[in-house]
Amino acid sequence: MNANQIVLHSRPEGMPVAANFKQVSVELPALEQGEFLVKNLWMSVDPYMRGRMIDRESYIAPFIIGQVLEGGSIGEIIKSNNEAFPVGSKVSAMNGWRSHYVTDGADHTLLPQTPINESHFLGVLGMPGMTAWTGLNKIANLKEGETLFVSGAAGAVGSIVCQLGKLMGAKVIASVGSDDKAQHLSKLGVDAVINYKTTKDLSQSLSDAAPQGIDVYFENVGGEHLTAALNNMNDHGRIAVCGMISQYNDTTPTPGPNNLAMIIIKKLKIEGFIVFEHWDSYPQFAKKMGQWLATDAIKAEQTVYEGLEKAPEAFIGLFEGKNRGKMLVSLK
Amino acid sequence: MNANQIVLHSRPEGMPVAANFKQVSVELPALEQGEFLVKNLWMSVDPYMRGRMIDRESYIAPFIIGQVLEGGSIGEIIKSNNEAFPVGSKVSAMNGWRSHYVTDGADHTLLPQTPINESHFLGVLGMPGMTAWTGLNKIANLKEGETLFVSGAAGAVGSIVCQLGKLMGAKVIASVGSDDKAQHLSKLGVDAVINYKTTKDLSQSLSDAAPQGIDVYFENVGGEHLTAALNNMNDHGRIAVCGMISQYNDTTPTPGPNNLAMIIIKKLKIEGFIVFEHWDSYPQFAKKMGQWLATDAIKAEQTVYEGLEKAPEAFIGLFEGKNRGKMLVSLK
Repeated sequence: MNANQIVLHSRPEGMPVAANFKQVSVELPALEQGEFLVKNLWMSVDPYMRGRMIDRESYIAPFIIGQVLEGGSIGEIIKSNNEAFPVGSKVSAMNGWRSHYVTDGADHTLLPQTPINESHFLGVLGMPGMTAWTGLNKIANLKEGETLFVSGAAGAVGSIVCQLGKLMGAKVIASVGSDDKAQHLSKLGVDAVINYKTTKDLSQSLSDAAPQGIDVYFENVGGEHLTAALNNMNDHGRIAVCGMISQYNDTTPTPGPNNLAMIIIKKLKIEGFIVFEHWDSYPQFAKKMGQWLATDAIKAEQTVYEGLEKAPEAFIGLFEGKNRGKMLVSLK
Repeated sequence: MNANQIVLHSRPEGMPVAANFKQVSVELPALEQGEFLVKNLWMSVDPYMRGRMIDRESYIAPFIIGQVLEGGSIGEIIKSNNEAFPVGSKVSAMNGWRSHYVTDGADHTLLPQTPINESHFLGVLGMPGMTAWTGLNKIANLKEGETLFVSGAAGAVGSIVCQLGKLMGAKVIASVGSDDKAQHLSKLGVDAVINYKTTKDLSQSLSDAAPQGIDVYFENVGGEHLTAALNNMNDHGRIAVCGMISQYNDTTPTPGPNNLAMIIIKKLKIEGFIVFEHWDSYPQFAKKMGQWLATDAIKAEQTVYEGLEKAPEAFIGLFEGKNRGKMLVSLK
């Protein structure tokens, strides 16, 4: 049997382009004892994958030219020589960017029986949702009555951060890149939304939206957003640094904010985090998030591209602001 | 009776100059009941005072043009209508930049009876020493066997940070601005010293000195030092942000490091602090530091300018690297 895969054809210089990716067909091996065959149903594209396209040391190994890309995936077992993973079960794994694959089940998790669509295990119930929850609870320690600023607020992580912030009793200020996204977040209960593409002075807009100052900043964007946040932080404010998407396609490094002295003046705490290091809290998170989803307290939006061949376009779209909520590729 | 005072004559633009200061003579009031007269013996000049010369909101109120400057002081009570503060006692206060003053004793602390020279209560046993101890213990949580990088390492705070780092069992890498300072720190037991003024590539020099990476960075300088530290931090490294002296005289804000993404990649924690917020730990600190001084485990160097009229020169000298250890003005 053959499987389609998308491999890294060349390393992007700046914004990724279609030519950096190549679809290939590979022959899958026959199943050995203990192995099973998975047909992928969904794959995730996430901004952090851009970092893996650079050949450098990081918290996760770089992708290799000519090899299949990796990323979150949800698949269905269609053939099995492994009793723990029976045919018909659905599994989550890091085996995206391919139509089918054979595995012995290492690093695979069986999805629970639930009425929730399985695709949400790549979003609100998966890495992005867990990232939002971890950043607010374990890193920034957001408290009731505080003011939270979220950049990249319409994205997979940001849109959950905003909603969790409201559930935790915070005033939430969001920054997004389109009026459509702004309206959507307002509907979700966010207190004030700034369209950073149309505002003249982000720092001033933030000050107008949060005259009482910012206690927690959930950082997804970097650059000008970090500068504006630093200017508006309250004493002892906390910044959970999840991502800096504005810089992922830089061909030369961008200078940082010119107001880092605020770290001293305001006695700020800035902490970067990688959600995988907090995965032992996943069951605690999943239980709560499952309840919130079931009661509609959290709404999980998705932007779906259809077909493996659309995966590069979906990935590139992340950096063009094309997604509202979780960006997914359907492989059904 | 008259007292000499130094007032802020104009706000510095960039590097402070003598013309920003003015010495005046004021008549002291007669002592009321509960008041006492202090003759200052020592006054402190510290880099943070530069920030108070700017008219802006901060953790401490700005100095006012035409009013006497403030800062750490040690004085002797020469006349008293207050039984709690008898004649002959020595007091520490924030009443520097003046020869004599009258007070009711608010915010005054009687110095303990000790063979240690009273001037050390402005240095190793005062704010700078407490800053060093707080940064390592309460902010960065330095552990035995870790590698510590200290910038501004020959200064009042930095030189104590280096020595405390050694006492805590760390490998200590220091950055200073002269070979004389470098040699001095080597004698104090620091493992490697970089003269940042003569090195071509600070980040590479730091990497050479600490091939195993940096676990804790004690930040006194900012700018290029922060960039180099970020490049060389280990995963889960901590940065205690005490000061950014390289930027205090900037007339236009300097851009920050272009490698802030390291905060995410390495999951770093960066925390600014102001020692006054930690003053409830002062007795715990002073007990330990007193023992270290008595046993010569910590050596407290001082650079002393003689006479109130030299105070502006001493202050300006802080930004020219003229001090080794604590910069003081003797008013005896």
